[in-house]
Amino acid sequence: MRPVKVGLLGLGTVGTGVVRIVEGNQADLSSQVGSPIVIEKIVVKNTDKVRSIPISPEKLTEDPWEVIKNPEIDVIVEVMGGIDQTKAYILAALEHGKHVVTANKDLMALYGSEIIAKAQEHQCDVFYEASVAGGIPIIRTLIEGFSSDRITRIMGIVNGTTNYILTKMSQEGASYESVLKEAQQLGYAESDPTSDVEGLDAARKMAILGTLGFRSHVELKDVSVEGITGISSEDIAFAKRLGYEMKLLGIAEMQDDAFTVSVQPTMVSQNHPLAAVNGVFNAVYVHGEAVGETMFYGAGAGEMPTATSVVADLVAVVRNMKLGVNGSKAMLPYKPKRLMSDELVFCKNFILLHVDDKAGVLAKITQVFAEFDVSLASVVQQPNEHNPDAEIIIVTHAASKASVQQVLEHFESLEVIRKIKSVYRVVG
Amino acid sequence: MRPVKVGLLGLGTVGTGVVRIVEGNQADLSSQVGSPIVIEKIVVKNTDKVRSIPISPEKLTEDPWEVIKNPEIDVIVEVMGGIDQTKAYILAALEHGKHVVTANKDLMALYGSEIIAKAQEHQCDVFYEASVAGGIPIIRTLIEGFSSDRITRIMGIVNGTTNYILTKMSQEGASYESVLKEAQQLGYAESDPTSDVEGLDAARKMAILGTLGFRSHVELKDVSVEGITGISSEDIAFAKRLGYEMKLLGIAEMQDDAFTVSVQPTMVSQNHPLAAVNGVFNAVYVHGEAVGETMFYGAGAGEMPTATSVVADLVAVVRNMKLGVNGSKAMLPYKPKRLMSDELVFCKNFILLHVDDKAGVLAKITQVFAEFDVSLASVVQQPNEHNPDAEIIIVTHAASKASVQQVLEHFESLEVIRKIKSVYRVVG
Repeated sequence: MRPVKVGLLGLGTVGTGVVRIVEGNQADLSSQVGSPIVIEKIVVKNTDKVRSIPISPEKLTEDPWEVIKNPEIDVIVEVMGGIDQTKAYILAALEHGKHVVTANKDLMALYGSEIIAKAQEHQCDVFYEASVAGGIPIIRTLIEGFSSDRITRIMGIVNGTTNYILTKMSQEGASYESVLKEAQQLGYAESDPTSDVEGLDAARKMAILGTLGFRSHVELKDVSVEGITGISSEDIAFAKRLGYEMKLLGIAEMQDDAFTVSVQPTMVSQNHPLAAVNGVFNAVYVHGEAVGETMFYGAGAGEMPTATSVVADLVAVVRNMKLGVNGSKAMLPYKPKRLMSDELVFCKNFILLHVDDKAGVLAKITQVFAEFDVSLASVVQQPNEHNPDAEIIIVTHAASKASVQQVLEHFESLEVIRKIKSVYRVVG
Repeated sequence: MRPVKVGLLGLGTVGTGVVRIVEGNQADLSSQVGSPIVIEKIVVKNTDKVRSIPISPEKLTEDPWEVIKNPEIDVIVEVMGGIDQTKAYILAALEHGKHVVTANKDLMALYGSEIIAKAQEHQCDVFYEASVAGGIPIIRTLIEGFSSDRITRIMGIVNGTTNYILTKMSQEGASYESVLKEAQQLGYAESDPTSDVEGLDAARKMAILGTLGFRSHVELKDVSVEGITGISSEDIAFAKRLGYEMKLLGIAEMQDDAFTVSVQPTMVSQNHPLAAVNGVFNAVYVHGEAVGETMFYGAGAGEMPTATSVVADLVAVVRNMKLGVNGSKAMLPYKPKRLMSDELVFCKNFILLHVDDKAGVLAKITQVFAEFDVSLASVVQQPNEHNPDAEIIIVTHAASKASVQQVLEHFESLEVIRKIKSVYRVVG
């Protein structure tokens, strides 16, 4: 049977994994799809570079157009990264009738709808399982596994770098700066770690998951983002003492057809399954009205896990080719977009205050909470080890984001409060 | 657009959930598939019975053939349970060109291949996501999410009843008998709990998962089964003291194209993600050569979670109907069946012996392990609280099942050993 021919854009970590799997599992793959899958051409920056796998030189090219316009090629696998230029390549490939598999979360978070629409116009598939949570098939799960349900909440540890850093800080009591440095040396963090540690990478993934889970268009600009750079080892010690683990959590919620999506450092109860997700692992917790609690756990990055998802998408494309149904499986959001107002977003909060160590302070503070209708689960006042202030550690019951914001604004002008030291969302 | 008409066989717990979801999420479902989905007829044992949901009486019938032979009906959803009679209904429905969605693990474990072959003959779909692990879309994940990978190991907590019993025994130090009674009162265990507590239910699910994961025909008779009825609270206390939780674990392993599948009480390291799966929850841990460690967690049973999977399958059938590709997505095992010999199945073991409390006993025992090449991770000898024997608690390193069997047989004839009290597999 005629082999299916693949053009690979990029031969970095994931690209190398894709070649390994397609070549190593060839017998298995062709048993499943009924014809061989061949990587015909590979676009690289430098054809002369030494590679970790044997590649015959005539497969390599530095010119993406040689692949995109090649009438022999059926599917483009994009694992080169980048946004604007890569988008142009992908749109052109679709116009040339080629199916696309991509691992590019940045691109899909920003231009997913445009790319999927273009694909449908040309009866092409666009699959992007590898763009979120590496080897975990969470995109398929949201589109197909939970097609029958109404998803109410998605919570994800979807960035391995920050989870590695927070796990180390928690397990070793180390500072953010020292763990970041170590992560960079180990290759778990980029030399410029901004996109990971500021939460942008997680925000992009949450926009994708939110769109699929809620079937409504979650744009990157709808995601409120806070990174992990402000987390002190003191904060983490407080979290542990109260029975929580600090995680950078993406939280997407849907209620009455309105959604809210955020990424922020969150104290997760040690009883919650997300609390045990450590190191570079990822996990996505999904709550549906009917299915209840579920969680999907696995490697969020890395050569082979990510390549597993890319090649599974490739298998899906080829199966669709055999059936002649490419372009029919895309999930385009069909629900009108409505954002939840801050009055309706409810969550528990941890608040650490430094205050004057004198009588009546606690009464003044708790009065502010009462005024804005925020009820408290626990309040502890204790002397601070390092200075003459006292510390007040507050955990609220679920309260609206708007009310808590008002409390905090009020605190700014309250003389007895020296400093609002930390505020974290609390889950579980 | 013409509605898709469904015939429902059974209106028990899951059937009621299916009606709730199809009716409650109708708008969402038809947005996804492009036409309404209507439950046209429901086969029940007694049309006069009072139901927990409003059903118009003319939809009910006591005659399955009225549904199976009805030319108006496109899809049969089988949630009545049973084996031989139900198999006859399903085969007949397929012969009448109807697609089938079933939640019936017993049927699929025993006759899955025959049913799928019949479906293909008639270009019909047979989907059975709900047959394993209720709301967790693990069947899709194995067929599609990991199509590119070679699965080496599947470990599942796939029976909620036994997991509830073991969790309670662990958390409360209670006896098997008392917790079983409580579980029966709460409706978590049947009045005849044999199929759950003897591991048969889990074995059926593992046969299905093994077949899908290894793409080789795992039959029920290939699964070695041991239930939880012999587990004492003492065993669970030992497990906890050594850092393990006792779980009824299904374990399917593939190596060099040969597989082994078993269900047995297993001590799972508290560091392993499966150890934290408590109560009636299910989880399936999947290890693939490329993807590494993954785990899928959720409700394993119950009206709404199971119905979520049934209706997701129904959505998949209707999507295929629209595309005219029914019957094309079945995973029929394509790898020749080869069972692993006990010499090649390696695992760690916990062994508790009651022995004579005198000098030289430990030397004799450890010599037997050495003779059969089983190396030991830890050995503790202590006086027994309740009788004059001493206890020896042994944890082995990974050793072949055959060697451990030989050691145990040898122990039977060793005079200093009063009793082989317990033997458990150890994971992690």
